[in-house]
Amino acid sequence: MSEVKRLTGDEMRFLERFLPPGARSPESGRGALLSGANMAKDEKLPFVTLTYAQSLDGMVAFAPGQRTTISGPATKSMTHFLRYQYDAILVGAGTAVADDPALNCRYPGATLDDQPRPVVVDPNLRFRLADSKMHQLAKEHKGKGPWIITRPKTLDSPMDRSCEIIDWTDRMPEVNDNAVSDGSIFWRSILQALKHKGINSVMIEGGASVIKDLLRLPELIDTIIITMAPTFIGQGGVSIAPRRPPSAEENPSSLGDRSYHQFGKDIVVAGKPYSSRAPLHPSR
Amino acid sequence: MSEVKRLTGDEMRFLERFLPPGARSPESGRGALLSGANMAKDEKLPFVTLTYAQSLDGMVAFAPGQRTTISGPATKSMTHFLRYQYDAILVGAGTAVADDPALNCRYPGATLDDQPRPVVVDPNLRFRLADSKMHQLAKEHKGKGPWIITRPKTLDSPMDRSCEIIDWTDRMPEVNDNAVSDGSIFWRSILQALKHKGINSVMIEGGASVIKDLLRLPELIDTIIITMAPTFIGQGGVSIAPRRPPSAEENPSSLGDRSYHQFGKDIVVAGKPYSSRAPLHPSR
Repeated sequence: MSEVKRLTGDEMRFLERFLPPGARSPESGRGALLSGANMAKDEKLPFVTLTYAQSLDGMVAFAPGQRTTISGPATKSMTHFLRYQYDAILVGAGTAVADDPALNCRYPGATLDDQPRPVVVDPNLRFRLADSKMHQLAKEHKGKGPWIITRPKTLDSPMDRSCEIIDWTDRMPEVNDNAVSDGSIFWRSILQALKHKGINSVMIEGGASVIKDLLRLPELIDTIIITMAPTFIGQGGVSIAPRRPPSAEENPSSLGDRSYHQFGKDIVVAGKPYSSRAPLHPSR
Repeated sequence: MSEVKRLTGDEMRFLERFLPPGARSPESGRGALLSGANMAKDEKLPFVTLTYAQSLDGMVAFAPGQRTTISGPATKSMTHFLRYQYDAILVGAGTAVADDPALNCRYPGATLDDQPRPVVVDPNLRFRLADSKMHQLAKEHKGKGPWIITRPKTLDSPMDRSCEIIDWTDRMPEVNDNAVSDGSIFWRSILQALKHKGINSVMIEGGASVIKDLLRLPELIDTIIITMAPTFIGQGGVSIAPRRPPSAEENPSSLGDRSYHQFGKDIVVAGKPYSSRAPLHPSR
């Protein structure tokens, strides 16, 4: 495993515009505030950042369920700097099962207090938390105890209760399980439940189905940070191309207020998502 | 149609490493040479650059056959600067039919002598040249006369002979039409035929099926210049994800000696393609 290094001043200045309110640099002892300090666009929700690494052809893995290193060591350091900035890190069950991710922050100087809350969205309780790295880290006081977010009806079945389990209709009695087939209600409920539990900022790290869902819900996402690796994974890889909105000529989302920065061999693209119409007029 | 503007010094310096031998700037009257001057990696072939614009999810069009403006005005100027540098500009028949592209160079200062040769690869002679913009421009002495490259057997059928038609097995008697189902022989033959006719550099501009073919043939391509627009086109769009090599764990291609530059709202990624194995070990 490659080492997590401190980011340079340039790298932090590039990122700070895309970080939640109160973003900090751990460099100077007690943590100087970075200037970014965005507000969440919806005050009922946490500040939400979506982040992931992809190939030039929009793939996040070589094949379904196959753990694939796409980005280089420089963006690994970026990931841990980012984890330092959020109250929670969220992944889908597919990623939790396939990767067994630690989801802790190993940035130099990070203490237990600085650790984000690991959150797994697991509608069918597939993830075996008791055997997991994040559970182990919590027992060793190297990470916070994970939370699992699931569907209400799953809570009636016998299960491992060693962690906090959140019903995603928590405090949203009008949302029933059938409504969940529309992703937007699903994700808004989840984010609202997290906010209700004191999470003011969350970084969502994948996997592909979570990314695909959220790329077409720009109204829920404050910032997106994508690491683009200079390679093509090709057909058969796992694409992040989102479903289209029902309107025929609309792109799922575009990035406004965007910025680019090179991290080693990769380019990081950051921006603030919005809905946009596809420009379908003649070019060249 | 937006104006074609001169590139800045920074923009030219970014591009010059990816240009063919003898690349020029038209700025200073008789054209100062840029320092780039790469050699073609295969001396039997022209210097080949593949260039196109894509969304973040690896799409080049909103739907098949639908002309889509992906990149902004700044990269339009780049396209015309690039066209100034090549002996020929090549597109596939699908793009020629759907877009009716001019394929000429409208960079400030470009004369008729500076115009690249338009080349259409059209196996089944679908493109109606007589009605086309490139044909019109040639008649008006604003562009060179186009060449059509087709399969040998197509040459026996009655057709419009108002342009030069090249049999892609020209000077390659060992390549027969059946071998063409393997894309690599197809493209090597085409490039070799162009070289034989005095074309020492060619820029290939698409469309999607041409790009997909060539992204998995890095041995034929000297440089790739991709304009990445900060938007997601979504499922149903036309993807450039190439087919995989037969070997199970190999990426179609990666970019070496890569560089990045922002052009307006877009990021341009340039590099030199090579075959690479997919890194399938644990990350984060």
